[in-house]
Amino acid sequence: MRAGRPQVKQDRAVRTRRAILEAAAVVFEDRGYDAAKLTDIVSLAKVTKGALYFHFESKEHLAQAVIEAQVSMHAPLAPQEFKAQEFVDVGMVFSHRLRYDVLMRGSARLTLEHNGRELDRAAPYLGWIDLHTALMAEAKERGELHPHVDPSAAARLVVGAFAGLNVMSQTLGLDLDREVSALYASVMPGLVVPAVAERLDTAPGRGARALHDADEACRCDGSAAQPPAPREPVAAAPAH
Amino acid sequence: MRAGRPQVKQDRAVRTRRAILEAAAVVFEDRGYDAAKLTDIVSLAKVTKGALYFHFESKEHLAQAVIEAQVSMHAPLAPQEFKAQEFVDVGMVFSHRLRYDVLMRGSARLTLEHNGRELDRAAPYLGWIDLHTALMAEAKERGELHPHVDPSAAARLVVGAFAGLNVMSQTLGLDLDREVSALYASVMPGLVVPAVAERLDTAPGRGARALHDADEACRCDGSAAQPPAPREPVAAAPAH
Repeated sequence: MRAGRPQVKQDRAVRTRRAILEAAAVVFEDRGYDAAKLTDIVSLAKVTKGALYFHFESKEHLAQAVIEAQVSMHAPLAPQEFKAQEFVDVGMVFSHRLRYDVLMRGSARLTLEHNGRELDRAAPYLGWIDLHTALMAEAKERGELHPHVDPSAAARLVVGAFAGLNVMSQTLGLDLDREVSALYASVMPGLVVPAVAERLDTAPGRGARALHDADEACRCDGSAAQPPAPREPVAAAPAH
Repeated sequence: MRAGRPQVKQDRAVRTRRAILEAAAVVFEDRGYDAAKLTDIVSLAKVTKGALYFHFESKEHLAQAVIEAQVSMHAPLAPQEFKAQEFVDVGMVFSHRLRYDVLMRGSARLTLEHNGRELDRAAPYLGWIDLHTALMAEAKERGELHPHVDPSAAARLVVGAFAGLNVMSQTLGLDLDREVSALYASVMPGLVVPAVAERLDTAPGRGARALHDADEACRCDGSAAQPPAPREPVAAAPAH
């Protein structure tokens, strides 16, 4: 969308940073924070150690950037008829991306790990909770929710439950998409009014469908506010 | 209840094993599996290395026993009017015990960790899921549930969500009891019929109340099937 602007160098820096982050995520997911070695990361990313240190001061800073990527690089979504659907879509899309996106996988692992105590693991929870709270608050303003619903309590419930379903699904070899779909099917009727509940899509595969919607929305109106293709999240997307 | 039986030696062995398990749980919770040292565990438990090796072959076996303790030593509960209440009580009591029981805390940490890949982390999830599934199946037979409810899907949802609420609450310094209470308040109305829903106790503090019930039941009828006092779970309680 910004083709033609003279920013070749900046684009290359963004690509290099992204390559380092992804390689780091792979190594962190495989070995955990303590055992991960920067030499393995530079070799996987095919960059020099100098390039790594240009972008990240230390292993700790690199791990922190991987941790924060799960929220700062969350796939922007197409607006839906109901804000409650967008609330569901955030988790369903994340669950979908955890299947193939090494950065999301490495980030989720580092967030759940206890090693590397100097890392700030609160950031992704708080980021997800803020994002979900904002969507629930909008849904409430629009009359989509039962009057008693507390947007931030609903956000904490879904964010916490999601994290556990993810680690349990990995441990037991379950299909996370199915487990997360069951979470929304169970929780949403207690949050939204019946007229909304009956039209929400919480079925397995919703993550892929929502990404497809976002992709279509992006192609059609070419607006800068629209999301990039989900498989290539913008490295410098602002944190929420 | 078995006072007077000549089993002093056996009692001492049970106490020693329990002391080692608790010391191990403290060290594993503090350092994680990889960094935990058997010398620190024997020193904290005030036992010899020989005593440790008498009970546990290796650090791996010890960690596995700590992991499995969270289900095998779950506090037996007093029967309730509804099986659905017993389903709720399992999680509310576990959440309560995570406040003060070092064994439960160390076990939960090892279960969520990725280090020590040789450990079987599926066991506690499967144990909890089996226990919850059995209670939901009984509730269903008694007509407490909506007809469409799948006992094992409900069990997976609650067990997975609980694990995530626990790690999130630790990370953010939230009150797990409140978060788990919100989980049941949200999920149970979709599982049980309204006549049961309106009489379920899912409020914060339910764990402490359920343990009190169990304690009372134990004192009154003296039955061997009744639970021991919750602060001193029997080391050799059978696994479910």
